[in-house]
Amino acid sequence: MIEPFDDTYFMKKALQEAEAAFEQGEIPVGAVITIDNRVIARGHNLTETLTDVTAHAEMQAITAASNFLGGKYLNKCTLYVTLEPCQMCAGALYWSQISKIVYGARDEARGCINLNTKLHPKTEISGGVLAEEASALMKRFFVEKRNLN
Amino acid sequence: MIEPFDDTYFMKKALQEAEAAFEQGEIPVGAVITIDNRVIARGHNLTETLTDVTAHAEMQAITAASNFLGGKYLNKCTLYVTLEPCQMCAGALYWSQISKIVYGARDEARGCINLNTKLHPKTEISGGVLAEEASALMKRFFVEKRNLN
Repeated sequence: MIEPFDDTYFMKKALQEAEAAFEQGEIPVGAVITIDNRVIARGHNLTETLTDVTAHAEMQAITAASNFLGGKYLNKCTLYVTLEPCQMCAGALYWSQISKIVYGARDEARGCINLNTKLHPKTEISGGVLAEEASALMKRFFVEKRNLN
Repeated sequence: MIEPFDDTYFMKKALQEAEAAFEQGEIPVGAVITIDNRVIARGHNLTETLTDVTAHAEMQAITAASNFLGGKYLNKCTLYVTLEPCQMCAGALYWSQISKIVYGARDEARGCINLNTKLHPKTEISGGVLAEEASALMKRFFVEKRNLN
C-alpha cells in the first residue's frame, strides 16, 4: 500500500517554507510541525526581516504549534525542517519534548549533531530527507547573494 | 573610586525581573541587557503565560535588545541573567555575538556549561553574581508550588 503522508510529503511542505524565506531574502530554511499526519504549524527563517537572531524557522514553528495545541509540550508531534537544527533550536526542541525531528540537509559546522546538543530522551532524530533539494536552495541563495554584493 | 554600575547593580535589575516572574507563577528567572552601562532590554520567564517553551527571560531580552538597537548583533552588550542560560538561550546568544554574559546561580543539570553549548568566540562568560539571592528565589518558588499541589 502506498502511504501518501510519508516524510518526503511533509518535507516538501517544509521546502515550500524555505522557498518563501528565499523570496524574502532570508537564508532559506523552512519547517513544519505535524500531528497525526496533519500540519499544525509552519515557519521560515525571518532573522533579517525581524532583525532578530532568534527568528529561526523551527522557533516560529514551535511557538505556532504550541499556540495551536494550547499546550507547550509537543509530545506527539514531528518537526520537519530543511536544515539540521542549530543549538538554539535543538535546545528549544529539548524543552518541547517533541516526539520526532526529521531534517533535510546536514549542517556540519553549526548543527546540533556535531555540537552535541542534548535532545530530550523522548525525541528521535533522523535526516537526509530531500537533503539535495534543501542544500541546492541554500547554495543558490549564497551564490546569488555573493553576486549582488 | 566607587563604581556604581557594577555587575551587582545590573544583576539586581535582573533579580527584579525574576521577582516579576515569580508573582506571575512563572519559574523565577529574569534578565536585562546593557550597553555602555545602560539597560536597553528586560525580560522574565513567561513560558506558562505564553504557553511557549521558547519564552525564556534571555530570549525575550535578546529580541528586545535587537529591537532597541535596530540590529540583530549584540556585540557591545552584556546580558545579566539570574540563572545560567540553558542550551537554547546559549545557542541564541551564540548567534547574537554578545560581548559578555553574567549569570547568577549555576544550573548544573540543564545549564550551558555542563552541556558544553558552544558560545561565540567573542563572548566572555562569568557567574556567581547574587547567586544566593537568585537561588533562594527559585527554591521559594518550588516550595510554594509543591505546597499548592
